[in-house]
Amino acid sequence: MEVELLYDMPRLEEKLLIESFRQRGVEVKLTNVNTMPLLIGEVAAEIALVRVVSMQKALYSAAIREAAGATAINSSTTLMLCGDKILTLSRLKAQGLKIPRSMVVLGAESAEVAYRRFPKPFVDKPPIGSWGRLVTLVKDKSTWRSVLEHRQMMQSQQLRTHIVQEYIESGGRDIRTIVIGGEVIGAVIRRSVGDEWRTNVALGGKTEPIKVNGEIAELSVKAAKTVGGEFISIDILEDKNSGQLYLNEVNGVPEFKGFMEATGISVADELAKYIVSVMRR
Amino acid sequence: MEVELLYDMPRLEEKLLIESFRQRGVEVKLTNVNTMPLLIGEVAAEIALVRVVSMQKALYSAAIREAAGATAINSSTTLMLCGDKILTLSRLKAQGLKIPRSMVVLGAESAEVAYRRFPKPFVDKPPIGSWGRLVTLVKDKSTWRSVLEHRQMMQSQQLRTHIVQEYIESGGRDIRTIVIGGEVIGAVIRRSVGDEWRTNVALGGKTEPIKVNGEIAELSVKAAKTVGGEFISIDILEDKNSGQLYLNEVNGVPEFKGFMEATGISVADELAKYIVSVMRR
Amino acid sequence: MEVELLYDMPRLEEKLLIESFRQRGVEVKLTNVNTMPLLIGEVAAEIALVRVVSMQKALYSAAIREAAGATAINSSTTLMLCGDKILTLSRLKAQGLKIPRSMVVLGAESAEVAYRRFPKPFVDKPPIGSWGRLVTLVKDKSTWRSVLEHRQMMQSQQLRTHIVQEYIESGGRDIRTIVIGGEVIGAVIRRSVGDEWRTNVALGGKTEPIKVNGEIAELSVKAAKTVGGEFISIDILEDKNSGQLYLNEVNGVPEFKGFMEATGISVADELAKYIVSVMRR
Amino acid sequence: MEVELLYDMPRLEEKLLIESFRQRGVEVKLTNVNTMPLLIGEVAAEIALVRVVSMQKALYSAAIREAAGATAINSSTTLMLCGDKILTLSRLKAQGLKIPRSMVVLGAESAEVAYRRFPKPFVDKPPIGSWGRLVTLVKDKSTWRSVLEHRQMMQSQQLRTHIVQEYIESGGRDIRTIVIGGEVIGAVIRRSVGDEWRTNVALGGKTEPIKVNGEIAELSVKAAKTVGGEFISIDILEDKNSGQLYLNEVNGVPEFKGFMEATGISVADELAKYIVSVMRR
Repeated sequence: MEVELLYDMPRLEEKLLIESFRQRGVEVKLTNVNTMPLLIGEVAAEIALVRVVSMQKALYSAAIREAAGATAINSSTTLMLCGDKILTLSRLKAQGLKIPRSMVVLGAESAEVAYRRFPKPFVDKPPIGSWGRLVTLVKDKSTWRSVLEHRQMMQSQQLRTHIVQEYIESGGRDIRTIVIGGEVIGAVIRRSVGDEWRTNVALGGKTEPIKVNGEIAELSVKAAKTVGGEFISIDILEDKNSGQLYLNEVNGVPEFKGFMEATGISVADELAKYIVSVMRR
Repeated sequence: MEVELLYDMPRLEEKLLIESFRQRGVEVKLTNVNTMPLLIGEVAAEIALVRVVSMQKALYSAAIREAAGATAINSSTTLMLCGDKILTLSRLKAQGLKIPRSMVVLGAESAEVAYRRFPKPFVDKPPIGSWGRLVTLVKDKSTWRSVLEHRQMMQSQQLRTHIVQEYIESGGRDIRTIVIGGEVIGAVIRRSVGDEWRTNVALGGKTEPIKVNGEIAELSVKAAKTVGGEFISIDILEDKNSGQLYLNEVNGVPEFKGFMEATGISVADELAKYIVSVMRR
Repeated sequence: MEVELLYDMPRLEEKLLIESFRQRGVEVKLTNVNTMPLLIGEVAAEIALVRVVSMQKALYSAAIREAAGATAINSSTTLMLCGDKILTLSRLKAQGLKIPRSMVVLGAESAEVAYRRFPKPFVDKPPIGSWGRLVTLVKDKSTWRSVLEHRQMMQSQQLRTHIVQEYIESGGRDIRTIVIGGEVIGAVIRRSVGDEWRTNVALGGKTEPIKVNGEIAELSVKAAKTVGGEFISIDILEDKNSGQLYLNEVNGVPEFKGFMEATGISVADELAKYIVSVMRR
Repeated sequence: MEVELLYDMPRLEEKLLIESFRQRGVEVKLTNVNTMPLLIGEVAAEIALVRVVSMQKALYSAAIREAAGATAINSSTTLMLCGDKILTLSRLKAQGLKIPRSMVVLGAESAEVAYRRFPKPFVDKPPIGSWGRLVTLVKDKSTWRSVLEHRQMMQSQQLRTHIVQEYIESGGRDIRTIVIGGEVIGAVIRRSVGDEWRTNVALGGKTEPIKVNGEIAELSVKAAKTVGGEFISIDILEDKNSGQLYLNEVNGVPEFKGFMEATGISVADELAKYIVSVMRR
């Protein structure tokens, strides 16, 4: 049995995955997508495990391997949907799942209307990006105009697009679950720290394990299924007053180092086990 | 019966579509996506006809309308696949359809390898973009390095990505067909003019009608089906020596003014007729 | 007598200048710098009056005409200094003129230090840009981080650079004077309107005439002299509590339509008169 | 005696400079301009030696130190002129010095005219940039259009601007001299290697020492004087047929590692010696 592991920046996570595969007798072929050009229609192994940090490169890697009949994990369709927050939110909503109220500003001319339609503060973010980057809590008109002016100068239409989103009072925390092959393997809470309202670990957020209750598990599995993902992490916000849960983001190339440290769950092992079972089908 | 027509820059084509719908008793609701923010989950009509010139905005428009249960034409899935040439080519290849040999360079470190693997001249293009923009015929190392250096300075990863493609000797022409609801409605040839090798009309290319033969029709219908498109234009290259046909590009928001003028076919009418038939199902 | 008028977007102001020159028997040669390439060392007339809206293009126009011995108004040295607010502020400070306390952040690593060194709110702006664009009133850490993250994504080092500046309590107004050939010809006040704190006319600011007192006149003439400018507009902030005046910005290609309407002073006439006197020397 | 050395990326060159100063009893204060915000009007020492690799940051560093009365080497005026090739070429031309015939394209509309006015191949480059980056040898219309289209997509007006320059047949080599305090300290030849026409060391160019003849020395000293530079490197092209010399580029923050290795001249020592003499004046 063989798996191709496609990567750009090898991290601890990729090393753990290689080990977990080898322990199960699976040969791992490594492909650095930055140093090897990828021929459309050429394939390295039956399964292409995409661990590329750049979301756009991850998507291309999956699509190119599928072109030759490989099974990409996650599939290119999943990575397309997870790689753009407007597409993710739209699909979740189409499935009747709860998301924060979200409005999309495609042209600067519609920005004033959007501003008036949301109570302050609201959240503004572009549809692409990781680690909380550019996610802004807009408290007043002056901040809103600054964000608009800055984003108007971006080259890419994705970065010029705004998702304006109701701010969920979650007490500075969110829930992150990981789903593998339709099963939730665990969950953590991330808390924002100090004067930073965002919970991202890259911004200092702290992670601690929690028990997965039925509602969180159900929501997570539905979200993963909505995007067709086999290995997915999901961010959930809980309104601290009403207890209402909201799906916030779905990640198609999950980071799992912090999750693993907090919960003691070997995500690499769980994933390798799942992929071996897929190959045996 | 009601159709929502989503647009950003109204052209003759949109005016013709409105007329064609009204003649069939269909009310048309107009939405300028630049001046109206779009709420995810809000819908204006059962059918959302996406005529937005910006491909990224077109994709978002379709996804947001689908979130509330509307049928977008084309669907967001189709627009995702057509909006990025790597995704299009990969899907076509996965279906066993003929494309020019294509290699993807995701990192500058792999550029030299790609250069050596192709006979010169070869074609270089980014996965996004319209009207032939940035499509370069690379004849030698010096041009290749200039293109690489320029693209490395782009903000967006899509523009930093290269599709390196074998150059098909097509005698300065390509074939464009339009497919509506699984049927080819006609075809034109586009010829490059003067010292410009690209055939795009925006670059001076000339359009003339041709008869659609069986092979071209079959290829077009298969390409449209591969991306799940209901209203699609398809670019086909014919090798002038071997006669071999290659699928080159698939457009999810087809321009049709030049096609209409060359062939006399009322594309707007054909499309309106098709959409009415969809609504009656 | 001949003057070359270099422009990119002809406005009312340029038409008035042409008239004023013709009334004085001066022939005006028009050069659209967007449609005519400029050969370094070629000259059209003894005087090159630079009315190019893009500051970078204005600078190049002046330098290229000086290369062949023409007198540019303003000179390329003046346009260099006025085209970048760090250079302007540094020169003003070097001359002992009063500017708001200003700190320059060249790398993201020094942003936290700068944040701590200023009372809130403070002003953040890039060294280039017009009409108040990207000028942000930073009230808290969360806004500061959003601005930093947005600017880190800009391609140009100038836009990635921050001028952090003490906020002068000027009661939502600033003073704008125009200096021609070392003489102040008049002044206006610009007031910010509604929920916009910036006074720029492009952002809705209102203009009204004021009398030029001795202190304002002296400051303006010194500022113009510091940058070597012959036709300059100057922005001055007055602390509403202490009455202290601060030089804020110096513009090397002044817009004067609003100034003219508010004061009734024919800036075009004053400038033409001055230039004729220069040519007669 | 004290010197402030401002830097961003410390290289061997900066270490050698620190040693050379210490051997002369000069204390060196180090300022990393990326980690320390710079207050306009604050000064660290009488002399500010600017060794910042980023040209824009180098310019700001010099200007900010001059604001408090320090002597920057090079001065901000020199760095302004050297930091932009259009300004450099214009000043050299204004002084009657020989440069390759150069035309500036500020708007895409004037690109066709420029193309027709130059024999092929010609050189195209933006006014900013180092190590030969984006410098393109344009052989035909198709390459020219590709370069134009790529540069139109840049955010900065400087990168959207083209210097179109006659190609000097220099046999794949150029001459680089270093001038300190009005004296040429030596010269090298840089040769391009393999299929790369540019001579830049970053692109594989090879360096070897040559004797400085009278003509080269005179040209170098005049060039340094034209930009007011105290420590300057100069690139000179020699037409291999006519022997005519052309000034090509003038660098205000010279790299000197390769020069030092090829010639055996301790540039750091020469510079320290000169700066000590300046301080003693």
